[in-house]
Amino acid sequence: MKTLEKIKLINDPVYGFISIPSQLISQLIEHRYFQRLRRIVQMGMTNLVFPGAVHTRFHHALGALFLMQRAVQVLRNKNIEISPQEEEALYIAILLHDIGHGPYSHAMEYSLVKGISHEEISLKFMNVLNREFDGKLTLGIQIFKNEYGRHFFHQLVAGQLDVDRLDYLKRDSFYTGVSEGAINSQRLIAMLNVKDDQLVVEEKGVYSVENFLIARRLMYWQVYLHKTGVVAEQMLVRVLKRARELVQNGHEIYGSNCLLYFLKNEITIESFSDKTLDVFSRLDDSDILCALKEWTTHEDYVLKTLSEMLLYRNLLKIKIRNEPFFEEKVVSEKSKLCSSLSLSEHEASYFIFSGKLENQTYNKIEDPIRLLKKDGSVVDVTQVSDQLNLTTLATSEIKYYMCFPKNRG
Amino acid sequence: MKTLEKIKLINDPVYGFISIPSQLISQLIEHRYFQRLRRIVQMGMTNLVFPGAVHTRFHHALGALFLMQRAVQVLRNKNIEISPQEEEALYIAILLHDIGHGPYSHAMEYSLVKGISHEEISLKFMNVLNREFDGKLTLGIQIFKNEYGRHFFHQLVAGQLDVDRLDYLKRDSFYTGVSEGAINSQRLIAMLNVKDDQLVVEEKGVYSVENFLIARRLMYWQVYLHKTGVVAEQMLVRVLKRARELVQNGHEIYGSNCLLYFLKNEITIESFSDKTLDVFSRLDDSDILCALKEWTTHEDYVLKTLSEMLLYRNLLKIKIRNEPFFEEKVVSEKSKLCSSLSLSEHEASYFIFSGKLENQTYNKIEDPIRLLKKDGSVVDVTQVSDQLNLTTLATSEIKYYMCFPKNRG
Amino acid sequence: MKTLEKIKLINDPVYGFISIPSQLISQLIEHRYFQRLRRIVQMGMTNLVFPGAVHTRFHHALGALFLMQRAVQVLRNKNIEISPQEEEALYIAILLHDIGHGPYSHAMEYSLVKGISHEEISLKFMNVLNREFDGKLTLGIQIFKNEYGRHFFHQLVAGQLDVDRLDYLKRDSFYTGVSEGAINSQRLIAMLNVKDDQLVVEEKGVYSVENFLIARRLMYWQVYLHKTGVVAEQMLVRVLKRARELVQNGHEIYGSNCLLYFLKNEITIESFSDKTLDVFSRLDDSDILCALKEWTTHEDYVLKTLSEMLLYRNLLKIKIRNEPFFEEKVVSEKSKLCSSLSLSEHEASYFIFSGKLENQTYNKIEDPIRLLKKDGSVVDVTQVSDQLNLTTLATSEIKYYMCFPKNRG
Amino acid sequence: MKTLEKIKLINDPVYGFISIPSQLISQLIEHRYFQRLRRIVQMGMTNLVFPGAVHTRFHHALGALFLMQRAVQVLRNKNIEISPQEEEALYIAILLHDIGHGPYSHAMEYSLVKGISHEEISLKFMNVLNREFDGKLTLGIQIFKNEYGRHFFHQLVAGQLDVDRLDYLKRDSFYTGVSEGAINSQRLIAMLNVKDDQLVVEEKGVYSVENFLIARRLMYWQVYLHKTGVVAEQMLVRVLKRARELVQNGHEIYGSNCLLYFLKNEITIESFSDKTLDVFSRLDDSDILCALKEWTTHEDYVLKTLSEMLLYRNLLKIKIRNEPFFEEKVVSEKSKLCSSLSLSEHEASYFIFSGKLENQTYNKIEDPIRLLKKDGSVVDVTQVSDQLNLTTLATSEIKYYMCFPKNRG
Repeated sequence: MKTLEKIKLINDPVYGFISIPSQLISQLIEHRYFQRLRRIVQMGMTNLVFPGAVHTRFHHALGALFLMQRAVQVLRNKNIEISPQEEEALYIAILLHDIGHGPYSHAMEYSLVKGISHEEISLKFMNVLNREFDGKLTLGIQIFKNEYGRHFFHQLVAGQLDVDRLDYLKRDSFYTGVSEGAINSQRLIAMLNVKDDQLVVEEKGVYSVENFLIARRLMYWQVYLHKTGVVAEQMLVRVLKRARELVQNGHEIYGSNCLLYFLKNEITIESFSDKTLDVFSRLDDSDILCALKEWTTHEDYVLKTLSEMLLYRNLLKIKIRNEPFFEEKVVSEKSKLCSSLSLSEHEASYFIFSGKLENQTYNKIEDPIRLLKKDGSVVDVTQVSDQLNLTTLATSEIKYYMCFPKNRG
Repeated sequence: MKTLEKIKLINDPVYGFISIPSQLISQLIEHRYFQRLRRIVQMGMTNLVFPGAVHTRFHHALGALFLMQRAVQVLRNKNIEISPQEEEALYIAILLHDIGHGPYSHAMEYSLVKGISHEEISLKFMNVLNREFDGKLTLGIQIFKNEYGRHFFHQLVAGQLDVDRLDYLKRDSFYTGVSEGAINSQRLIAMLNVKDDQLVVEEKGVYSVENFLIARRLMYWQVYLHKTGVVAEQMLVRVLKRARELVQNGHEIYGSNCLLYFLKNEITIESFSDKTLDVFSRLDDSDILCALKEWTTHEDYVLKTLSEMLLYRNLLKIKIRNEPFFEEKVVSEKSKLCSSLSLSEHEASYFIFSGKLENQTYNKIEDPIRLLKKDGSVVDVTQVSDQLNLTTLATSEIKYYMCFPKNRG
Repeated sequence: MKTLEKIKLINDPVYGFISIPSQLISQLIEHRYFQRLRRIVQMGMTNLVFPGAVHTRFHHALGALFLMQRAVQVLRNKNIEISPQEEEALYIAILLHDIGHGPYSHAMEYSLVKGISHEEISLKFMNVLNREFDGKLTLGIQIFKNEYGRHFFHQLVAGQLDVDRLDYLKRDSFYTGVSEGAINSQRLIAMLNVKDDQLVVEEKGVYSVENFLIARRLMYWQVYLHKTGVVAEQMLVRVLKRARELVQNGHEIYGSNCLLYFLKNEITIESFSDKTLDVFSRLDDSDILCALKEWTTHEDYVLKTLSEMLLYRNLLKIKIRNEPFFEEKVVSEKSKLCSSLSLSEHEASYFIFSGKLENQTYNKIEDPIRLLKKDGSVVDVTQVSDQLNLTTLATSEIKYYMCFPKNRG
Repeated sequence: MKTLEKIKLINDPVYGFISIPSQLISQLIEHRYFQRLRRIVQMGMTNLVFPGAVHTRFHHALGALFLMQRAVQVLRNKNIEISPQEEEALYIAILLHDIGHGPYSHAMEYSLVKGISHEEISLKFMNVLNREFDGKLTLGIQIFKNEYGRHFFHQLVAGQLDVDRLDYLKRDSFYTGVSEGAINSQRLIAMLNVKDDQLVVEEKGVYSVENFLIARRLMYWQVYLHKTGVVAEQMLVRVLKRARELVQNGHEIYGSNCLLYFLKNEITIESFSDKTLDVFSRLDDSDILCALKEWTTHEDYVLKTLSEMLLYRNLLKIKIRNEPFFEEKVVSEKSKLCSSLSLSEHEASYFIFSGKLENQTYNKIEDPIRLLKKDGSVVDVTQVSDQLNLTTLATSEIKYYMCFPKNRG
C-alpha cells in the first residue's frame, strides 16, 4: 500500500477528520466516476421531510472508508492478520461499493433501468476502473463479490454489521436530526472480532447490537419510510415512467442527452454495455431536476402535473396502514378522478395507486449476527438476547399505502 | 406564579440553557436543602467505570425542571389547560422529587436507613419546606403524592414517561459517553398529550417509545448494572454495614457527626423525626469519602480492607450470569478465605457474597405507556408495537452475581 | 398573527426542532418561490473542499427563523414591546431575506446578472408575494428595507449581529465540520437588548462578541475564502461568462430555457421585469450542473475545459499572498499558455487570472456593535474590549490570488 | 513499550474512547496516587456557577493522554522520529503532570502549603513512583523537567500549545456548556510539526491558533475568572486561613487527620518530606467539604459564617472593575462591619477584601507560539497574524475586585 507523501485530511462533521490512507485510494477519489457521487444525494427525496438530509453518496463513501480503517485497526489489535494488500483491497471495496448508484439513489433502480441493482452497476464501474488502474483493484473486487478466501472481509463490506450500515445509520441520523436513531459505530467496531473466518461481535456487545437493530428499525419507519418521502419517491418513479412512455410513443420531451438515453432505451443487465456505463457515469440528480423543471411546461397533463407537484412540494396524499387497501377502493377513486379531470384510467393511475412497504429489521437466515461467547463458542444474537425477543424482528414487517390527490380519498 | 425580575439562565451542556421560571423556584434552588444535592453524585459509584459520570443530583433536578417547562408548553399548545398555579406546582414537584437522596444515591437506602425510600425522605423535606414557605408548596406536594385531582400531572412527575426519566437517561448517556443510550427527550415530549386525565403519547410516536425503552434497557445492563459499578456499590453498602456493626458493638470509629448519627441509630420510617431530617440534610458524599479514608487505618480488617479497596479502586472480582450461584460454592469459597486469612465466617461474608440484579424494561401492569390513536382511542403501547414484541420487555429480567477476592473463585 | 391549528415541527440537526409560528409563515414556506431555495446550496462551491457543506438556502432561512423567534422571546422578557403584527413581520423579513439568491449563491451575482445584488432580487420576490398575499407582507418589507420606525427590527434582520449571521456562522461551522468556527448563537441572543431604538448587547456579553468576531474571521479565511473554493467559484463565474460570450456571438450552446434567458439577455436592475423574476424563480443549481455536463462535449476549448475541470474537480492551481501579483507575471504566463495550447490571449485569460480577496471582520463605521453598560450608557464594542484591540479588525484585510493551469506558474 | 494484552478502552464524552497505550501506563492509572485525582474537581469552585463543571483531574489527565497519542501519531506521520521509549515517556509525563494538585486545585496552593506550586508536588510524586517502578519513569521525569535533549517533547507537555491546554480548554468548555470556548484540538494537533527541536504550527494553522488564543481568553474572563467563582475561591482560601489561625492559636477544630496536618504545620518546599507527601496523597476535596460542614457549628464567627456561606452558596458580593479599589473604601467598609457585627478589624478582613485578577492571553517572551512558514522559516505567530494584532494579547490584562457582605458596599 503506497502511502501518501502528505496525509490528506477531509473535514467531516460526523467523525472530525477522515484521512486518506494511500495513493491509490486518493486517485480513486479524484476519478470523475467517484466525483459524480458528489451530485447524488444519499437519501433520495427524504430531504423534503428532513431538510438537513442533503448529504451525498460521496460523503457516505468517505465515512465508510473511515470506519473501515478503524475496523482494520481493531482487528489487528486482536491479532487478526491483515496484509497491506488486503487492507487496501478492503478500502477499495468499501469506497466503491455504492459507486453504481444513480440519481436519487434507489428511485432510479425502478425507473431508468429494468431490474438492475446498483450493486451490479458498482461492479461494472469497478471493472472499468480496474482496467484503468492496471489490475490494482482485483483483490478489492474479489472481496466485494465475496470470491476471496477470507469471507469475513466481505462481511465487513456487505453484511448485517458492515461498515456501510454503520456509517449510513449514523450519518443519516446526524443529518436528519433524528438523534435517537444514532448508533455508536465506534463501540460496535471496537467489539468486532473474527472466529472461523466469520465476523463476530464479542458477547458483551449484545446490548449494543440490540440498540443497533432497534435504531435501524426506528430509522426505517420514522425516516426512510416516512410517508412524505415514500409518496415523493413513488411520484418520482412515476414521472420518469410517464416520460419514458411519452418518449416511446414518439413525443418530444426535454432532457439531457444522458437522461434521454435511458428513457429511449430499455436497459437490462444484458444490454448494459460499456457505452451505457459511460452515459450512466454522466447522470446525476441534476438531470432529473432540470427535466422536472422543463416538464412543468409540457403539454402532457400527467407529466406536467407530477413535475410541478414534486418541485413545489405539493404532493399527493398518502395513507399508510397495516392492512392492504381494497382494490375496489382504488378503482372507484380512479374513476372519480377520471370523470372530474377527463383523464383516461391509465392517466389516473399516475395519481391514484397503492403499494406496500416492507422492512425486516434482522435477517437471521441469510446473514445472522454472530456473537462470540467467552467460552469461544459462536451463537446467533437472538439466542443470547432472549429477553428482547429479537426473533420477532426477523420476520418482515409490511405496511400498505395508498396515494391519491388531495381533497379526495 | 411570580416571575423573576431578571431571567436567570443556567448553563447546561445537555440543553444549552436552563431558565428559572419563578421567584419561588429560585428560592427553593437557593435553599440549603437543595444546594446539598450539589454534593451527591447522580450515578453513585458508576464513575469508577465511566469517569465522566460525576454529574450531580442538583444538575439532574434542574434538567428535569427544564423538560417540565417544555412539557407544559407542549400540552398548552394542544389546548390542555394548565393554570399558573398548577404550572408552578409541577415545577416544585419535579424540582424536589429527588431531594431526599442520600450519599451515593441508592447505596444509602440499603445501609444508612432501614427500608426508607428516598421518595419518602423527599416528601419529608417538602413538608418542612412547605412550612417555611407558608404553604406555597401544597399543590406541588399533592401532585407528588398523586393526591391531586388531575392525575396526569403526577404521571409527568413519576411515571413510565415522566420528565425525571427523560432527563436522567439523556443526561447519564451524555456524561458516561455511552452515546447509544441517548434518547430524544424533546421529541418524546413533543408527542405527549392528555386523554381522559391520562398522559398519552400520540400514535406516531410509537417508534420513539420503543427506542426509549430499548435505550433504557441498554443503559441498565451496560451502565447502571455494569459489573464494576455493582460490585463497588455492594462493597459500599457492606463497608457501611460493617461500620454500623462496629459502632453498635462499642468500637470507636471515625466519622462526621451526621454519619455517626446514622450509624449509631437504627432509623426507620417511624423514628425518622424532624431532628433526623436535619442531620440527614447535612449528609452527603463527602462524609462517606472522608470516613473511608480514615477507615483505611482502622484496626478492623474488614473495615480497613473494604475502605482501601474502594478508595484505590482495587475491587473484588464479580461474576454475573443468568442462573443463581450454588450456595455450596459460596460457602466453600468463604471457608477457604476464612482459613487463608484467619477470618471468622461472618467476616468472610463481607468479601464473598452473592445476589441478584433485576431490571424490568417496561412495567405494563402498574403503569402502562398509553398511545393515543388517530381515532381518539387509547391503547397500551404493546398493542401497537406488536412486531417488536414489547410484551417480553414487561417481564423482569434477572441476573445473578457473585463477588469474591481476586485470585480466588 | 393567525396561529396554526397544529404546530408544525421541522427537524434540524443544529437546533433540534424548528417550529413554524403562524399560518402565513407556513404558506410562505410552501410557496414555490421559497421551495426553490431547497435547490440552492448555501455555500456555493465550498463543498468541493468540505464535503459536508451541502446544506441549502432553504435550511438556513428556517434556521434564521428559529433564532428570530428566540430573539423576540428574549426581548419581550426584557420588556421590549413587540406586537403580534411586528412579530410576524420580523419572521417574514428574515424568512425571505435570502429568497433572491441565485444558483450557487454569490457566483451568480457576478455572471448571470449585472450588478444586481441578491437583496434587490429578494425585495422583488417579496413585492410579488405581497400582492399575492393581499398586502400581508407590507410591514415585513418595511422592516427589510429599514423603512419602519423602529429601527432595531431592521438590525435584527440585517446588521452586525443579525440572526442571519448568527445562523449561518453556526450552521456553516456545523456542516463543514470546522468546529472552532462555532458561535454560541443562543447566548448572544440571550444578551440582546434595545436602547434608544438600537439593538445593543449587554456589557457582560463582550467576550461573546469578541468570540463571534474572531470565529467569523476564522470562517472567512479558513472556509469561505479557502483557496480551493475561491478558485472553483472564479472558474464558475468564468465558464458562465464564456457561455454568455458564445451565445452573444451566435453560437449554439446547451442550456435550460431559464439559463439561456440569462445568458442571452443583459439583465440590469432596470431591465429586471416581472417576467425576468418569473424566469429567475425557475433557476437553481441544477441548471448550472446540467449545462456544465453538456458543455464537456462542446467544441469550444475554453467552455469544454472549464466545465470538465469543475465537474471532475480538477481545478486550476491558485496562489494566495498578501501582496498583489505582478501584472508582467500574469502576462508572461498567459503568453506561454497561448503558444503551448494555441490559444488567443483572450482565451488564455480564462485560465490565468488574478484578483483579490477582502474581508472586514468588523465594520465599525457603517454598523457598529453597541454594548449597553450597566450604567445605561451605550458604547461601541471596541471601546470596551480595548485589550483585544478590535479596532484593527475594523480595517479591511486584503489578500491577492493568482490562478493558472497545473504544471505551470 | 510493553503493550497490554487486552486493549483497555475508557468511555469519554469528549473524545469517544480513550485507549490505554501500555502496561506501565495502566499500572500508573491504577495506582492510588493517581486514583486520588478522581476526588479532585478540575475547576475548583466553578461548579457553583456552571453546575456541569464537576469533572475531575483524573478525567482531564486521561484526556491529555489521549491527545498525546494523537500528537505522537501526527508527528511520526511527518517523519519526526519518536522511539517507543520516548513515546511512553511522553505518556508518563502528561499523565502525571497534574498529580500534585490538592483539593479544589489551585485554592490549596495559597492556603494549605506556602508557596509550593502543584508542579513541584507533581514532581515529588513522580520521584516516589519512579522508585516504586524501578526507574521506569526516569525519561518521563526528564521530559517533565525539560532536562531531556529533545526539547519539543517538553513543549508538548508544558508550553503555549501543550496537550494539557488542548484538553482542558476543550473539556472545560464541554462541561460548563460554554460552547463558544470550544477549540478544535484535533485540528491544532494535526498541524503540529517540529523544526530545529522546537514545536511549531504549520503556517496554514494561523487562524486556528488565533481562535485558540481568543477562546482561551474568553474562557478566562467568562469562566475561570467568573466573579462568582472568584469570590467562592477567595472565601475558600480564607476559611482555610482562618482554620489555620485558630489551630495555631490552640483552638480545637474538626478536621480529618490529613487536613489537620496541613493546618498545624507550615509546609514549605524545604520541609515537604516523604511523610508530607504521604499525608498529601490522602487529601482531596472531601476533606474540605467535611470540614466546612462541621465548621458550620463552630463557635468562631468567622469560621462558622464563611463555611455556611460556601456550603449554602450564599456568597459575599463582589465587584469587578478595571481600576483598583481605593484603600479608603475598603477600610471604611470594614469599620462599618466591625461596629455592626462587633468584629475586630482582623475578623472583618475575612469578609471585606480586595485583590486583582490577571490574565495574559499570550506570553510571547517566555514561550512563543512558532509558525512554520512554507519556505521553512519559523516566525512568531504575532508576526504572521498581524491584522488581529495579537501583540496586544501578550500584555497582561488586569482587573480588580472587591468583596463584601450583601446589603453593603
